Amino acid sequence: MKWSETGIKTLREVPADTALPSHALLVRGGFIKKLSSGLFTYGPFMVRAIQKFEGIVREELNKRNCVEILMPMVQPKEIWVQSGRWELYDDLLQKMTNRSDQEFCLGPTHEEVISDYVKNNIQSYRDLPFCLYQIQTKFRDEIRPRFGLMRAREFIMKDAYSFDLDEEQAKVSYEKMRSIYEAIFSRLGVPFRVVKADSGEIGGDQSEEFHILADHGEDELFVTDSFAANKEVCPVFISHDTSFSESALSKKPLEEFHTPGIKTIAKLSQFLKLPEGDLVKILFLSCSLSSGEKKSMAFLLRGSDELNLYKVKKNLNLKENPTLLTDSEIKKVSGAHPGSCGPVGLSIPVYMDQDLKPFSSFITGANKDDYHIRNVIPERDFKLAGIGDFRYAREGDKGPEGQTFRSCRGIEVGHVFYLGDKYSEKMDVVYLDKKGKKQTVKMGCYGIGITRTVQAVVEQSHDKEGIIWPVAVAPFLVHICLLDPGDQKTKELADNLYQSLLKEKVDVFLDDRNEKPGVKFKDADLLGFPFRVNVGARDGEKGLMELVERRTGKRKKFSASEILTEILKNVNKK
Amino acid sequence: MKWSETGIKTLREVPADTALPSHALLVRGGFIKKLSSGLFTYGPFMVRAIQKFEGIVREELNKRNCVEILMPMVQPKEIWVQSGRWELYDDLLQKMTNRSDQEFCLGPTHEEVISDYVKNNIQSYRDLPFCLYQIQTKFRDEIRPRFGLMRAREFIMKDAYSFDLDEEQAKVSYEKMRSIYEAIFSRLGVPFRVVKADSGEIGGDQSEEFHILADHGEDELFVTDSFAANKEVCPVFISHDTSFSESALSKKPLEEFHTPGIKTIAKLSQFLKLPEGDLVKILFLSCSLSSGEKKSMAFLLRGSDELNLYKVKKNLNLKENPTLLTDSEIKKVSGAHPGSCGPVGLSIPVYMDQDLKPFSSFITGANKDDYHIRNVIPERDFKLAGIGDFRYAREGDKGPEGQTFRSCRGIEVGHVFYLGDKYSEKMDVVYLDKKGKKQTVKMGCYGIGITRTVQAVVEQSHDKEGIIWPVAVAPFLVHICLLDPGDQKTKELADNLYQSLLKEKVDVFLDDRNEKPGVKFKDADLLGFPFRVNVGARDGEKGLMELVERRTGKRKKFSASEILTEILKNVNKK
Repeated sequence: MKWSETGIKTLREVPADTALPSHALLVRGGFIKKLSSGLFTYGPFMVRAIQKFEGIVREELNKRNCVEILMPMVQPKEIWVQSGRWELYDDLLQKMTNRSDQEFCLGPTHEEVISDYVKNNIQSYRDLPFCLYQIQTKFRDEIRPRFGLMRAREFIMKDAYSFDLDEEQAKVSYEKMRSIYEAIFSRLGVPFRVVKADSGEIGGDQSEEFHILADHGEDELFVTDSFAANKEVCPVFISHDTSFSESALSKKPLEEFHTPGIKTIAKLSQFLKLPEGDLVKILFLSCSLSSGEKKSMAFLLRGSDELNLYKVKKNLNLKENPTLLTDSEIKKVSGAHPGSCGPVGLSIPVYMDQDLKPFSSFITGANKDDYHIRNVIPERDFKLAGIGDFRYAREGDKGPEGQTFRSCRGIEVGHVFYLGDKYSEKMDVVYLDKKGKKQTVKMGCYGIGITRTVQAVVEQSHDKEGIIWPVAVAPFLVHICLLDPGDQKTKELADNLYQSLLKEKVDVFLDDRNEKPGVKFKDADLLGFPFRVNVGARDGEKGLMELVERRTGKRKKFSASEILTEILKNVNKK
Repeated sequence: MKWSETGIKTLREVPADTALPSHALLVRGGFIKKLSSGLFTYGPFMVRAIQKFEGIVREELNKRNCVEILMPMVQPKEIWVQSGRWELYDDLLQKMTNRSDQEFCLGPTHEEVISDYVKNNIQSYRDLPFCLYQIQTKFRDEIRPRFGLMRAREFIMKDAYSFDLDEEQAKVSYEKMRSIYEAIFSRLGVPFRVVKADSGEIGGDQSEEFHILADHGEDELFVTDSFAANKEVCPVFISHDTSFSESALSKKPLEEFHTPGIKTIAKLSQFLKLPEGDLVKILFLSCSLSSGEKKSMAFLLRGSDELNLYKVKKNLNLKENPTLLTDSEIKKVSGAHPGSCGPVGLSIPVYMDQDLKPFSSFITGANKDDYHIRNVIPERDFKLAGIGDFRYAREGDKGPEGQTFRSCRGIEVGHVFYLGDKYSEKMDVVYLDKKGKKQTVKMGCYGIGITRTVQAVVEQSHDKEGIIWPVAVAPFLVHICLLDPGDQKTKELADNLYQSLLKEKVDVFLDDRNEKPGVKFKDADLLGFPFRVNVGARDGEKGLMELVERRTGKRKKFSASEILTEILKNVNKK
């Protein structure tokens, strides 16, 4: 491809509304151009990077017997009603009505469609297992699209769905896809981690995320050499701090004391001259039980910890995400305003974070405004509904093998879910087993954000001059800067190299514009293709061209005949 | 790919609601499956056929310096308002509102988006020309989707857009794309014709369609060896019949005669014992002038001919398609009911089809119920507003070089349009010329219906047993029927051949199901991949397999070692 054919103009300045470096670089280099909030046109370079990544994804999936199909983007309401998600799915679901008054949505995911697609084809146990996938444009009506392709409305995704006889076979499919994903992301040449994750809207009971590590990643991860989890779900194995001062170990009778105007743990800590971790805080939640009933509950945890609502929901098997009670609701259940509340005398269930187990007694609010109470002992002074892991893990906590958690940031680019029969039951995806008995097919679903991954690679691999594409997804491998386009001999040199590389099937880009060398160098660094060749009149006289490696800046001159060999050697090495 | 991995079940019966053979075959073979009216999932075979055709399209476009991009499917209302098409485009435009009350549509075409995309990048005459294209899912809210992928709601299209300095350069781009299209469709291996066409909704003043010829094609075409046109627009060069009887050549005075109850040309022909072609019929239209004013007009043509509204619109440069006057409107302008009307005494403009020129006088209605009139002479008895080509061409008419038109049917699969500045003017796509003067960019747009073409190939190439894929877009080239899957040795033979073909990068499909040979043969004929290899225990004993060519039915036995060579020879020959 030649620059003059692309219609691309680069930008020198960082565009407004680009908070992430990768977003700014992609806009500046003409890789993407905003049409409207969250809607982008992918320019010629971006399309090539996307296609290269799609190629990797297809190759690895096909190699492991996954089969490609393509489902409609527009989906009829009926199947979403059948799965129960027409109402339950959140506002990201873009609905519409056609001129015949039929309702549709734009697919953010395809569990319903694939279930409908396969169900007539699966009749007997002999028809299973299999795994289908598609690479397709998806749509989510993000309320606040941002970070370029990271949180766009329209984006490209690879979604795969596995169909198995039983849970055991389905877990094998899950593990297979997990290893396919590892193969895919390994080929990108950027650091990534597989982390334990929340199943979110999709449902199911096992899921892991694939994250490309990057300083500006949206998600906080806790990792050790052998373990990784998203902060949102990371279990607490061993606490970062198991020491307590004397005060936390007393077994004396309850003792109320006046704490005028002290409404926060920080203030109480100052007042008592005790670390926050020695104090006990209480939070009140409204929880929806599986019966649908809403119930207020109280949660105790160390004053220095943070309550994790995901864990509350998961550990208590709640139907929806719990919500915090309002101040007036708290007053109603405890008798006091927030800041003076505690477990003693409550009539609602009181749960306790596991980290409080070593405490023999607590200092808590007294359920009387401006009073606290010490020597509170569980089961003596209040009834305990349960003990569990309810807090966020934090840096310094230890993993399952005792190694200390490090915090890092990641960009979620892939997600694997074991679904079980969540969809197959509602969508009636069944088979007859060997005994002729009807059984529900066990499903898994697996996504890779194609466009998101490409931007994540840029986020992970750039410097202040521009992008540094890894070979695997580089739009072009070689960028020829024709420095004296007016000089016939130089032009021929560049054209010959361009043609030779094309013949060798090396992806080559030729900057044939009438621009000064400085402009071309800056643009080449911005676009960031792995190898640049400077072809100018002065070196050209001597039959030489300069090869520059984008990542290292290493540069060396070669004769026209040597350079092809040198490039091929470098490209194949990567 | 192995059958067991696909989740595909074929159907023996022709499914309901499949009017076209190709539609039925694609459904029966699991190539496509309906999700909802006009929405189809493409199964594993179909995805491969689509990708092969996309590969051909990309290769030919890239070879001629067209550059691929990808634009959003969801488009904001604002740019459609700017082009004037938000209201003007017909009901095919699927509109929707997001949760922030912004309006969008699903793109049926991308003139607006591409204009918006390029306009900041085109500044000077040095930035032109270039040509961009995309391969993308499009949506049209068809009121009555039918014929499978031929008239689907969601479909895949290749759309290209050229940007040029002036009309001359733009016509070069148009001709280039036309020749690229010829190269693309030539590679499919099915007969096609390039035909003159109407520009329709897209606009512009030059356009041609590419049709794959098929008995059940939607469009009627008139062709000679050197000329082809869609019936809708086909000009009349030389009439099929230039003979008239005496009565049509009289120059006597007007003579009214009673024709009680005679309202049609057919009845008048019987009554007068004259051929319909000797009589003159009149049609009344409401025409919208370029000023916006609506005007009633009358059109005279031979009784045996049919008025072509497209030609009326085009020849008189009307703003919209003309519509027929109602009976009461006709009574108002002519004074008589339909069947008794004629040109004499009318105060509205009267146009005449060129085929009436040889007539020296006409027999027409008298504008008096139940009366006709003979010896009507133009300009003596009524004023003529103009003479032109207003009728549909027909089989037997002659082309520009005197060859007789043959009628055939075609499926429109490609369309090239010269747009000029229709969009660039409204969307402000301009450049500064050498003198620094602002000029409007001249555009062209060019579409290929990707999914439509694949079905058209099937419509063109099948027999009663199933599809006969041409090699160019065949999902697989070789279909191995493993006839005794229970027999270990046979299974190994088949597996070895499968692996050898994979290694040679020949697209190979293995039917590894536990089914009877008869079932497998029927399915192989239905799926229609070019070469089938039967691997069974009996021949296997002797180390033989049978190669069957789908198109010819030719079959021959080969040893395991010979068959690979034979297949490669056959595949490369195609």
